[in-house]
Amino acid sequence: MKYVYLFKEGNKDMKNTLGGKGANLAEMSSIGLPVPQGFTVICEACGQYYEDGEKINESILKEIDVALLKLEKETGKKLGDATEPLLVSVRSGARISMPGMMDTILNLGINDVVVETIAAKTNNPRFAYDSYRRFMQMFGEVALGLPYEDFDNELIGIKKEKGVESDVDLTADDLKELVKRYKKVYAKHLDGGFPTDPKVQLTEAIKAVFRSWNTERAIFYRQQNNIPHEWGTAVNVQQMVFGNKGETSGTGVAFSRDPSTGENVLYGEFLMNAQGEDVVAGIRTPSPISQLKDTNEKVYNQFVSLVRKLETHYKDMQDMEFTIEEGTLYFLQTRNGKRTGHAALRIAVEMYQEGLINKEQGLLQIDPKTLDSVLHPSFEPKALKEAKEIGKGLNAGPGAAIGQIVFNSARATELKGKGIKTILVRPETSPEDIKGMHSAEGILTATGGMTSHAAVVARGMGKCCVCGAKDAKINEEAGTLTLAGVTYKEGDIISLDGSTGKIYAGKIPTIPAAISGNFAEVMKWSDEIRVLDVRTNADTPADTQKAVEFGAQGIGLTRTEHMFFEGDRIRAVREMLVSKTKEQRASAINKILPMQQNDFEQIFEALGGRPATIRFIDPPLHEFLPHTPKEIKEVANAMNIPVGDVEAMVEASKEFNPMMGFRGCRLIIAYPEIAEMQTRAVIQAALKLKKQHPDWNDFAEIMIPLTIDLKELEWIKKIVVRVADELIKASKTDLRYKFGTMIEIPRAAMVAGEIATIAEFFSFGTNDLTQMTFGFSRDDASKFLPYYYDNKILVSDPFATVDQVGVGRVIKIAVEGGQQTRPDIKLGVCGEHGGDPDSIEFFHRVGLKYVSCSPFRVPIARLAAARAQLKFPREKH
Amino acid sequence: MKYVYLFKEGNKDMKNTLGGKGANLAEMSSIGLPVPQGFTVICEACGQYYEDGEKINESILKEIDVALLKLEKETGKKLGDATEPLLVSVRSGARISMPGMMDTILNLGINDVVVETIAAKTNNPRFAYDSYRRFMQMFGEVALGLPYEDFDNELIGIKKEKGVESDVDLTADDLKELVKRYKKVYAKHLDGGFPTDPKVQLTEAIKAVFRSWNTERAIFYRQQNNIPHEWGTAVNVQQMVFGNKGETSGTGVAFSRDPSTGENVLYGEFLMNAQGEDVVAGIRTPSPISQLKDTNEKVYNQFVSLVRKLETHYKDMQDMEFTIEEGTLYFLQTRNGKRTGHAALRIAVEMYQEGLINKEQGLLQIDPKTLDSVLHPSFEPKALKEAKEIGKGLNAGPGAAIGQIVFNSARATELKGKGIKTILVRPETSPEDIKGMHSAEGILTATGGMTSHAAVVARGMGKCCVCGAKDAKINEEAGTLTLAGVTYKEGDIISLDGSTGKIYAGKIPTIPAAISGNFAEVMKWSDEIRVLDVRTNADTPADTQKAVEFGAQGIGLTRTEHMFFEGDRIRAVREMLVSKTKEQRASAINKILPMQQNDFEQIFEALGGRPATIRFIDPPLHEFLPHTPKEIKEVANAMNIPVGDVEAMVEASKEFNPMMGFRGCRLIIAYPEIAEMQTRAVIQAALKLKKQHPDWNDFAEIMIPLTIDLKELEWIKKIVVRVADELIKASKTDLRYKFGTMIEIPRAAMVAGEIATIAEFFSFGTNDLTQMTFGFSRDDASKFLPYYYDNKILVSDPFATVDQVGVGRVIKIAVEGGQQTRPDIKLGVCGEHGGDPDSIEFFHRVGLKYVSCSPFRVPIARLAAARAQLKFPREKH
Repeated sequence: MKYVYLFKEGNKDMKNTLGGKGANLAEMSSIGLPVPQGFTVICEACGQYYEDGEKINESILKEIDVALLKLEKETGKKLGDATEPLLVSVRSGARISMPGMMDTILNLGINDVVVETIAAKTNNPRFAYDSYRRFMQMFGEVALGLPYEDFDNELIGIKKEKGVESDVDLTADDLKELVKRYKKVYAKHLDGGFPTDPKVQLTEAIKAVFRSWNTERAIFYRQQNNIPHEWGTAVNVQQMVFGNKGETSGTGVAFSRDPSTGENVLYGEFLMNAQGEDVVAGIRTPSPISQLKDTNEKVYNQFVSLVRKLETHYKDMQDMEFTIEEGTLYFLQTRNGKRTGHAALRIAVEMYQEGLINKEQGLLQIDPKTLDSVLHPSFEPKALKEAKEIGKGLNAGPGAAIGQIVFNSARATELKGKGIKTILVRPETSPEDIKGMHSAEGILTATGGMTSHAAVVARGMGKCCVCGAKDAKINEEAGTLTLAGVTYKEGDIISLDGSTGKIYAGKIPTIPAAISGNFAEVMKWSDEIRVLDVRTNADTPADTQKAVEFGAQGIGLTRTEHMFFEGDRIRAVREMLVSKTKEQRASAINKILPMQQNDFEQIFEALGGRPATIRFIDPPLHEFLPHTPKEIKEVANAMNIPVGDVEAMVEASKEFNPMMGFRGCRLIIAYPEIAEMQTRAVIQAALKLKKQHPDWNDFAEIMIPLTIDLKELEWIKKIVVRVADELIKASKTDLRYKFGTMIEIPRAAMVAGEIATIAEFFSFGTNDLTQMTFGFSRDDASKFLPYYYDNKILVSDPFATVDQVGVGRVIKIAVEGGQQTRPDIKLGVCGEHGGDPDSIEFFHRVGLKYVSCSPFRVPIARLAAARAQLKFPREKH
Repeated sequence: MKYVYLFKEGNKDMKNTLGGKGANLAEMSSIGLPVPQGFTVICEACGQYYEDGEKINESILKEIDVALLKLEKETGKKLGDATEPLLVSVRSGARISMPGMMDTILNLGINDVVVETIAAKTNNPRFAYDSYRRFMQMFGEVALGLPYEDFDNELIGIKKEKGVESDVDLTADDLKELVKRYKKVYAKHLDGGFPTDPKVQLTEAIKAVFRSWNTERAIFYRQQNNIPHEWGTAVNVQQMVFGNKGETSGTGVAFSRDPSTGENVLYGEFLMNAQGEDVVAGIRTPSPISQLKDTNEKVYNQFVSLVRKLETHYKDMQDMEFTIEEGTLYFLQTRNGKRTGHAALRIAVEMYQEGLINKEQGLLQIDPKTLDSVLHPSFEPKALKEAKEIGKGLNAGPGAAIGQIVFNSARATELKGKGIKTILVRPETSPEDIKGMHSAEGILTATGGMTSHAAVVARGMGKCCVCGAKDAKINEEAGTLTLAGVTYKEGDIISLDGSTGKIYAGKIPTIPAAISGNFAEVMKWSDEIRVLDVRTNADTPADTQKAVEFGAQGIGLTRTEHMFFEGDRIRAVREMLVSKTKEQRASAINKILPMQQNDFEQIFEALGGRPATIRFIDPPLHEFLPHTPKEIKEVANAMNIPVGDVEAMVEASKEFNPMMGFRGCRLIIAYPEIAEMQTRAVIQAALKLKKQHPDWNDFAEIMIPLTIDLKELEWIKKIVVRVADELIKASKTDLRYKFGTMIEIPRAAMVAGEIATIAEFFSFGTNDLTQMTFGFSRDDASKFLPYYYDNKILVSDPFATVDQVGVGRVIKIAVEGGQQTRPDIKLGVCGEHGGDPDSIEFFHRVGLKYVSCSPFRVPIARLAAARAQLKFPREKH
């Protein structure tokens, strides 16, 4: 195995080996850009370093030596040489850019001898000593872990002594003195003092970069971005060029287009007589890149022309670092630039119009996740900077929300009636909060993760939600929220940023979501290419309408139980549950029939003939039961039975593990009247629409949740078919409907082949499937998952991105079983994963026919589906 | 497809088609026993009957006609014929005997014409009319559903009128009159009155037998005995022979050996001048079979000789029905007889000694489940009959127990100290009751199923347990138990029968368990044949000792958490959990080290070098936390922290679904100190034993529960290996230990191939695997499973017998994955299923190396493993 590559040995397709930076340096080098030469120690060496007990082994060290010799030969310079000294930079570079997460060391190779040579050769002792002191500080801190303060105190001290404000005002002699003092810092902490041997410096620097792969912030970043911990970082060792050699030198960063707006203008900034760190540090204010023209027109023109060349070569917007050494331009880095959703859309469309890329390349440029921000209102950036942040939770539901604090759902609904905007603040939410969540502008909870009830429901509603804000102390009784030491009461105004999870005091102005023409264009491209259908999860006509506007091709999941919780309905459900006879039960449940039928009619109408998968009742029994004494009394009175009987029923229905309890189709097996009523509601609604639109058909799909066995589904199907066929026969229409099941229990996946004999479609409920396959309770996992992240056992939340290895295998077994029995079986997914781009790619690969997601995720899913097809082409179904 | 077989067309191996009775009638017929001829409508016809909407279709009716014609030809008689009338019996007969569960109709073919012919031909009008009235009542009730009372009232009425007590005292004329009155009963309920057409009688009777397959009691029986509902029953139509033709006729039932003791004597009873129903009805007292010799020595000798012939032919103890018609002996049925555990052992051993069977045949005779009773004390049968039954629950733990009622564990332990026997009565038990359960003679709970905490733990202890006694009202505060309207207080004595689930008031004398020589012999045979090892689940030296006596080859599961709950230990665990620093945690947990090490030493000692799989801590975190204010204060004081902090910790640790929460190895990931301490305890104990027994090795096996991923197990293995290797190195011994994992989460099964790279063994935790695969919470499933049984969706409790289709597939995936990576991987099972004979057969078939079960189930498992090998031979590992 070869662990070290010279730049000229690589190319841009070797990212997995050389890391992004290394591959791009190699590529730039090969297409003739001015790049200082060097070599890359590959990513696998990082893993090897850890495997060898945080040591670089002999064979890799030898390869580094060989590469260094070649570099020295090529440059005619030599590390540590007294006459032609070579200085190098040592930089990290993983497969996927992790900006700012890992370490860099510049000016390596300098010591007391070399510094004098440089001073003499450049006739610029100040530059020489400036480089020296910079290296000493950086190397000391990063490679050897010496305390930052020790260096900083010396620098501050000398500036004070000399009476100067800025580093640049220090003279060569001052810097020489500073170097001396820095040596004392080294001597204080290290036996041997400052390591003057440049080879030792190099080895230590490379080790430091490897170590920086596993800093806390780097690990956290990888968790956030689904980057496997095994990948490791490469290390790039590159000849130094100097932006700090005086006023004809400089350094800068630039984007080939504006990363915020996407406008086709050069965007960036530069600083003369400086090294890269100065731009970042913000001590001196850099100038906009356009002013480079005034500073050095020739270099500017060369830069503009090379930027064009890079963009044309990479066919994507570039994010570049450059240095000018005494009037000569060098590129130190290029990579595809990160951009906002708006910018991504504009860049793709304009590059296409410019003929630079085709549609496919355009789609591959756009990270679907960035579209989230395009689809929701956001805070005015300027106002946001000045706002008072008072806390932080998880960015669980998108958008920005401002409102008066309320502590219960009823109050949210009441104030909404008066036109007052509210933020619903709850320790956590439950299904009984649904109405209040609808009424509120945003939701803030103290507990719960990204897939807690609050988060899931809020995302479904496209509602702003910050959840799991651990520092929020909520006292429901007192009606107070305490954050950052301040106590807020009902009526106080706060603002929530759903895309960052931040909480602000007071009101921050917002800007509305705008779907520009570029957005529509990109969606058109996506639809041309993708083979995966995109449906939506929607329970209301309003949501359905919104989803259709966003391009949903139907509903993949209507959760009918949400329709059970409203005022009159929940009372009827409760009456049913405490009924003693089949007749009492049927009479109680049938009170809901007209309401539910009306819901379905409106949803069918909003879909305009597109299919809707309607899932029969799902949540645990006890969620429907009365809990407060008032509710209990209400039910007892309505049923004319003793309060004690209702209390006993409530008590008896408590469960140890409700997620694996009396729920889903288990309720139907116990109370078949529910299925009868729901079938009646669906089919009667469908028949009504069918009369108005005789050409519509197959638009009603009945779906049974939590199935575990063929016999179970058969038993339920008999009820559905009996009720439906009777109604259809009486209607004298040719209405066709579909019958299918969720696959969300591992056993259902194992026996999917049998189940498919009577199920026309499967919809994977990947939330529950993930719960059962992992044995993770979604509501409790936040207690132990952090330990799994900290210890790098899990990289990302399996409830956010589907676990392809474990849950994925279960899904594949079900797909194979289902298709074997019924080759044309319709396979889809309606869990939260249906809106996650990485998961969508997986679902595309295993051959599903559609994904279903929240309305606001539909455009994201459309794009993700197209990208999946581009990466893993499969036949259109 | 052929739906009807003449007896002479079948044989004993066609049970699946002809049912047990039909196959045996065919067999007896073919080996020359005197059997009245007839034909069998096969089991599949029953399914067809239901599929056709409870109708017998034309083609089957036609086959019945053809068979009837052949029967008529053979017997020279004709159904309904005025001169040579044929009478037949119509009897059920499923694949597996379901005694008394289904219907029978005798004397079919009789009507006003036929009765007179019979009267004339037999010169016995009384016999003729007796047969007629018997048929009318039986047919009316069974085939046509007429009310029993209507017939009974007429019979009582006529006896009153005639002033007689017994049916036999009614004269021919009386019976003729009764027939008239019965006709009125028919006319009252049916338009056409009594159906005189014998063909109509036959069709209705066959339908009645099919219908009786689905009576409530039959369905319940099948659930109890794991008989699939699809099988259906066959119907046997057989020429009648008459035991009621006067004093030279008779009928009886007999076993070829004593089914209670197994003694080789003819066992049974007979009644002269009677039909079979008279023997069952108990109106007249039958005589012991030995007296038949005095009644008719020729017939008796013929009978004895034919019984021998049957036993020799079937090579098993036979349960037979016979009839003597005017001095001629007929066999109406034979089947392998049901027997007690004691009898089964004796019969097998003696038949082997007699040279009648070989060991393999002997083992296949013995139902492993019957051994349960051999292994536990039981109530004296006579006393039991007179005892006052006050309630019933599930027969969750074997044996018989008598004691004073106590309502909490502490009291049970306290009284045990004073030598007083108790029954622990709890709504349900939790891990904190363990000590009390140990102290009590038996456990009674009001809720929970066969695999509830109480049931599982009690079986593990071999303790008598009746759980889920729904009618038991327990008021803990008042200290009362109300059953059957009577309220019992602490100190009142009750008796529990763990093999029937019955609860009795007062004390019933018991007889101790005795393991006879036959038992040891059968175990020896089992061990010669089986390839599956049998280990035990044991947490204490006493249990271990007992299991070894019962033949356990090691421990498959030691639950270390049981060792955490006792007095001092639980305090240390609690201190650990509220600790804020790693050091505090380690110091707290290390208080347990010497105690746990001592536990392990004793267990290793008791095993005498056999291996012990020790599972690291498993249950949810919150089970260990203090709950009462006193406990909370105790912890707060010990840790010198505010009570509020401990309260907050307790509150924060509450879980929605603890079964899928913070438990198992997730605790280790959060608190690695636990694994360090437990490794230290295991290895230090092993080293101590190793010093005493230098030839012992590989006897300590460390097992991690709830694993989901290779990385997770890797992380834990590093800790274990570090601690263990250090200790072993310091000890200067060559101690080897094994490291493995449970496979109890579906995901672990899916990635078993990866996990096997570092796990030397897998132990399937089929309890949890069943929970996750079905999405059934063991503690809650009793709320909805009854509906699944009632509706025939599930046949048996998947927690009692492993679900081969769903859970079994998951297991197979893991077996294949594990063996692919590590061909010599040791595979076992340590869930409750390890002691269930049907499940053991499955585990044998998928290639596991061992099962592990409660000590009292070890002999059952040894036998079941041998039988599995006989049925599905595989190579010895």
